[in-house]
Amino acid sequence: MGSVERIKNVARRVAKWHAAGHKVVVVPSAMSGETNRLLGLAREISAMPDGRELDMIAATGEQASSGLLALALQAEGVAARSYAGWQVPVRTDSAYTKARIQEIDGTRVQADLDAGRVVVITGFQGVDDNGYITTLGRGGSDTSAVAVAAALGADECLIYTDVDGVYTTDPRIVPEARRLNVVSFEEMLEMASLGSKVLQIRSVEFAGKYRVPVRVLSSLTDPLIPLDEEMRSGTLITFEEDEKMESAVVSGIAFSRDEAKITLVGVPDTPGVASAILGPVAAAGIDVDMIIQNQSVEGTTLFSFTVNRNELLRARQVLDTQVVPAIKAREVLTDEKVCKVSIVGIGMRSHVGVAALMFETLAKEGINIRMISTSEIKTSVVIEDKYMELAVRSLHKAFGLDGEPKLA
Amino acid sequence: MGSVERIKNVARRVAKWHAAGHKVVVVPSAMSGETNRLLGLAREISAMPDGRELDMIAATGEQASSGLLALALQAEGVAARSYAGWQVPVRTDSAYTKARIQEIDGTRVQADLDAGRVVVITGFQGVDDNGYITTLGRGGSDTSAVAVAAALGADECLIYTDVDGVYTTDPRIVPEARRLNVVSFEEMLEMASLGSKVLQIRSVEFAGKYRVPVRVLSSLTDPLIPLDEEMRSGTLITFEEDEKMESAVVSGIAFSRDEAKITLVGVPDTPGVASAILGPVAAAGIDVDMIIQNQSVEGTTLFSFTVNRNELLRARQVLDTQVVPAIKAREVLTDEKVCKVSIVGIGMRSHVGVAALMFETLAKEGINIRMISTSEIKTSVVIEDKYMELAVRSLHKAFGLDGEPKLA
Repeated sequence: MGSVERIKNVARRVAKWHAAGHKVVVVPSAMSGETNRLLGLAREISAMPDGRELDMIAATGEQASSGLLALALQAEGVAARSYAGWQVPVRTDSAYTKARIQEIDGTRVQADLDAGRVVVITGFQGVDDNGYITTLGRGGSDTSAVAVAAALGADECLIYTDVDGVYTTDPRIVPEARRLNVVSFEEMLEMASLGSKVLQIRSVEFAGKYRVPVRVLSSLTDPLIPLDEEMRSGTLITFEEDEKMESAVVSGIAFSRDEAKITLVGVPDTPGVASAILGPVAAAGIDVDMIIQNQSVEGTTLFSFTVNRNELLRARQVLDTQVVPAIKAREVLTDEKVCKVSIVGIGMRSHVGVAALMFETLAKEGINIRMISTSEIKTSVVIEDKYMELAVRSLHKAFGLDGEPKLA
Repeated sequence: MGSVERIKNVARRVAKWHAAGHKVVVVPSAMSGETNRLLGLAREISAMPDGRELDMIAATGEQASSGLLALALQAEGVAARSYAGWQVPVRTDSAYTKARIQEIDGTRVQADLDAGRVVVITGFQGVDDNGYITTLGRGGSDTSAVAVAAALGADECLIYTDVDGVYTTDPRIVPEARRLNVVSFEEMLEMASLGSKVLQIRSVEFAGKYRVPVRVLSSLTDPLIPLDEEMRSGTLITFEEDEKMESAVVSGIAFSRDEAKITLVGVPDTPGVASAILGPVAAAGIDVDMIIQNQSVEGTTLFSFTVNRNELLRARQVLDTQVVPAIKAREVLTDEKVCKVSIVGIGMRSHVGVAALMFETLAKEGINIRMISTSEIKTSVVIEDKYMELAVRSLHKAFGLDGEPKLA
């Protein structure tokens, strides 16, 4: 929520749903810029701020916006009451600044709903077993909303963002990208993990765990558009794989530019060598994405993996100081000029030749594939990053995603 | 607390006390301007904001500053932990925006103190029986501090403000005004209620109820001045009337310019007429200060009282529409060009002629007294407001408050 005007617009939208007879719980984020302002103050005071105190500070942003939203609802004539996470309570573990929700007690909220009130619950935060305030980390308001929806057995969790849904790919790269009316949970999970920034991945995981249907909608539309029109906009993330699903083999093209590739040359091909390489990397808190180990030639092999580009230097340091001396590898090669492009779709499960079409399409454009990784519903390739847009556009076209959906 | 730099200074000062072996609880206010910013947002949304939601919003200011102070203490190498009012808990009634503290459970705080931690507790707020956040109203951080000190049986409650103590009168009016090293609780109560803005009156009442010694100190001094020097600065509000007290008859001259005088003329001198006049005024939420009823002449009398100047118009309206027709008074006279000047001192209890010296001093300056009101330790007069400074200066001199204290 940006300004007071945005808060009033949210209230008008919620009032519309309430007037149509729905029981509504709203989980607002902080006003825009507020979380950064608070964390900035903390960083001015301490270079290594304590997580417990950071959460105490950061949680105030959502508490203020929740109170303001309740006031705006009341000004619209809607009975409303706001609760901080600890008041619900939203119970979490004690991993301050990145806590995980363990349990939500919906009793108090349900009583307010039954009394005809709209309930506003602070996003992004909860309370641990000590009674200390915790926050869920960036984007945690989405996760809070899904968790509250699960706890209350809501029909749907509507997430209003600054985009109007999930697209076949980023429209800034492919103008022909289409909004998907429906996407399966598994596809959404792959797209979220592959860099589509519509929803925080943990909120998608939560939706999957508790089978909460989530609808992504735009917060920028007129708040008073008719309900049926509003429901036809956006993208529904569903668990029902039935005739409502678009039956395209591939639903979307995801991509990520924040990749770097690391190759160890001359790795002895002995049991346990993969763990000897990746163990120290994981211990340094560095996430590894794709991993490839080639066939060995004369007792040594190439071992490649990708990391987030921001973590390349740290990963390199771990390898040079700990791994290379230990396993006696010959050298470490790094490449930051790479990106990852993926095709995602539950239709791939039952269709052969999908990966082949991907490789053929890239070959036709003269794009060399550096790494390949596949799962049941996605195929990812690492390519030189200057080809990223070309790869995304050509794959979007090849899989029939331009214009109307291609039926399988 | 103004800025990050001010927060760091508070931390340095607290660290100094902690290093000297004291167990310290700190009750910070919000960063300056923050409460006004939050309430301003609420008012942009609603002209008549709900108190419960206002408190939810306003309480975030102290929560953030408490977390920031805990971080600053940790940066100084001091173990510290912050608690919101509800975490302590500080239990209050449900009078949102102006709640009163009912009980503070010091168990959790005491455990942290015993473990060597400095504890930071949000000022200004608590939690009611519903588990809803409440705030104590403006200046409530002082009251919180005194209440916490009472609950924990603290030796002293140090209140750091933007002045360095309690003065014999306002130094802006009388340059010879002196800081009092010690003042009795009763005197402080009179001075606070008479317009001396050093402490919120409720915090003084609380200190009296629980007999908490309070020391008013300047927050603007070097935070690292030696402890004994710091303790010699400021003013101690004490309950011990012993040789440590300065034995001046009059301790200070208080004054208030926000006064207005109302006189009803031709009031029938019948039983119950005072209540017939003041009942409707009180019902309208208007505080009445001094009240005088003159001897009746030919069955009617003059009835005068003072109200806050801001409430004169509302008081006048209540009188014109409800009181005058009901009691058949002849007319209502109002005078907003008045002020109140008071001499305060526990020495007045045992010294005759104090009031007489006051009246004589004013007469010598040609200042006409419009109303007089006395209590055990103060005498107040209402005079024309253009004489206020002259009256304060001449009384300050007459009672020996200029320069060194005058012994009784």
